[in-house]
Amino acid sequence: MFFEGSEKKVEILVHNEKLSLLNDVSDAFWAELVIRCNAKILSSIRNAECKAFLLSESSLFVWDNYFLILTCGETNLVNSVEYFIEQLGVDTIKHLTYQRKNEYYAHAQPSCFGDDVKRLTKYIPGKAMRFGAMDSHHNFIFHQDNDFKAATDDKTYEIFAYQICHDASNHLTRHGLAANDIREFLKLEQLIPDFQLDDFVFQPYGYSVNAIRGRQYLTIHVTPQADSSYISFESNVNLIDLLPIILDVLKPSSFDLLCYNETQFQTLTDKSVPQDYVSQSLVQQKLTNGFLVNFANYILPTQQFTQATVFEVDGENHEL
Amino acid sequence: MFFEGSEKKVEILVHNEKLSLLNDVSDAFWAELVIRCNAKILSSIRNAECKAFLLSESSLFVWDNYFLILTCGETNLVNSVEYFIEQLGVDTIKHLTYQRKNEYYAHAQPSCFGDDVKRLTKYIPGKAMRFGAMDSHHNFIFHQDNDFKAATDDKTYEIFAYQICHDASNHLTRHGLAANDIREFLKLEQLIPDFQLDDFVFQPYGYSVNAIRGRQYLTIHVTPQADSSYISFESNVNLIDLLPIILDVLKPSSFDLLCYNETQFQTLTDKSVPQDYVSQSLVQQKLTNGFLVNFANYILPTQQFTQATVFEVDGENHEL
Repeated sequence: MFFEGSEKKVEILVHNEKLSLLNDVSDAFWAELVIRCNAKILSSIRNAECKAFLLSESSLFVWDNYFLILTCGETNLVNSVEYFIEQLGVDTIKHLTYQRKNEYYAHAQPSCFGDDVKRLTKYIPGKAMRFGAMDSHHNFIFHQDNDFKAATDDKTYEIFAYQICHDASNHLTRHGLAANDIREFLKLEQLIPDFQLDDFVFQPYGYSVNAIRGRQYLTIHVTPQADSSYISFESNVNLIDLLPIILDVLKPSSFDLLCYNETQFQTLTDKSVPQDYVSQSLVQQKLTNGFLVNFANYILPTQQFTQATVFEVDGENHEL
Repeated sequence: MFFEGSEKKVEILVHNEKLSLLNDVSDAFWAELVIRCNAKILSSIRNAECKAFLLSESSLFVWDNYFLILTCGETNLVNSVEYFIEQLGVDTIKHLTYQRKNEYYAHAQPSCFGDDVKRLTKYIPGKAMRFGAMDSHHNFIFHQDNDFKAATDDKTYEIFAYQICHDASNHLTRHGLAANDIREFLKLEQLIPDFQLDDFVFQPYGYSVNAIRGRQYLTIHVTPQADSSYISFESNVNLIDLLPIILDVLKPSSFDLLCYNETQFQTLTDKSVPQDYVSQSLVQQKLTNGFLVNFANYILPTQQFTQATVFEVDGENHEL
């Protein structure tokens, strides 16, 4: 069955002198904020600098001066932004960035990016753009248009892997798989040693993990089913350096990289992206909020014919 | 402004001993059939064997024993199938094939392929499949499941070209462009000499042409605007042989081929697809109705970074 793994994401920095997100905001607030977009909190971990909530649809991370929420499926993440503004006031927001990946079941979504931008600009003037071609993998970004300037060391790395190899898909859809099996399969100990982990195995399959260490975080969301597999990684750890390990495990037919403030993007990808992959899209844009954004989509060319994907034709088929 | 060029297509063969589509069916019938899916007839041409109607959203071709309708935009083509069945009875249908390309503004469509299949199977039992990866260009095909077997010489060729080069996009979006300029630009005289042509230049841009000669047909639909350009070709003339001319004019960043009953697909594409392009998807499937279907998606790898696509942010922006 198809599941829309594509995420929407909001990052809100607050005026930290007015509001401490760790001290002044209760867990009940975050629970309600998550409910507003049609998700719920499954579990959480925390350290002195960060709280990480694992959600029924992806993740929420809270630091003292900002929070980050990613939601997949048919969530309406702008509802959560509206809740934040209603409860804490738009003036607490120092800077907002909203990002949305293209979907494959777009007709089932409660809104499109244009709808989201219309609602956000009722509160916050901003700029909207697309990274990647319309007819290929792409991400939309909306960001607040104010005098905020991002610090050059405020870096984010995202990997979106599609069509993972049959072995990986078979492994990750095995019945009765334990969280620990998936941690080992994804080589988490090698990728992020000494991180605190919080993970969840969905039924019949699917996996999410939040990992934190100090201010560092990594979150991975796995939609493993063959034919529509999708695995996303987001972190402030340099994922381009970890790409060879990740690609060796998943062997995706296609993957995207999206990075904020990685000035060595080309040098690092030249080193880390295997030569078998070719670039379909390469986009670089300096945003007026100071972020340098790089987006790249890579594919693995094929010479092999495969068969068509055949669907069951009945009234209850949700794949079509 | 974005326009959804992606087509839906229906081909219906009739029991020709019971019904002659050229002699027994009036132009008023076709006009109404087209209106039902939310399009209209702009003009038509005919010869002894074929009538070709140019539509506000693509094309309709009628031969004595079958018809073919392609519609783009936000049309609901299954409405037209229902009209045909209401008026002429489901028993006149010898075989039906419904095809639908993935859309980029899927949330604006009146239905998804799954909805269409549900409606079609109320009248006609059938099979549904997808050619191409979910996260890449793909086409859905639904076909009637009965004892019909396609003739081996019943061949169809489709090309879908995306992200045409800047020169082609600039040329095709020029103000005041005449149909003849576009015919020359597309090298129609070289592609299909001695065909009868019927074409239309849309405002502010966009172009459609129907071409017929005997039972042969070609139709081209041009959505030329930079950033979301899309040009489709469909014909029973061998378009793989013509591909070098077409690619030389359009230089698309990506294109797809979809062919019915071309048994030499690999040999022909090896000869006609320039080496610069690599295959992202290659699909081959023999359908139970006798058609051999090949689908291939090619991309032009890039080493060049481009800038993001920036959108105007206001309430009236329909691009988002």
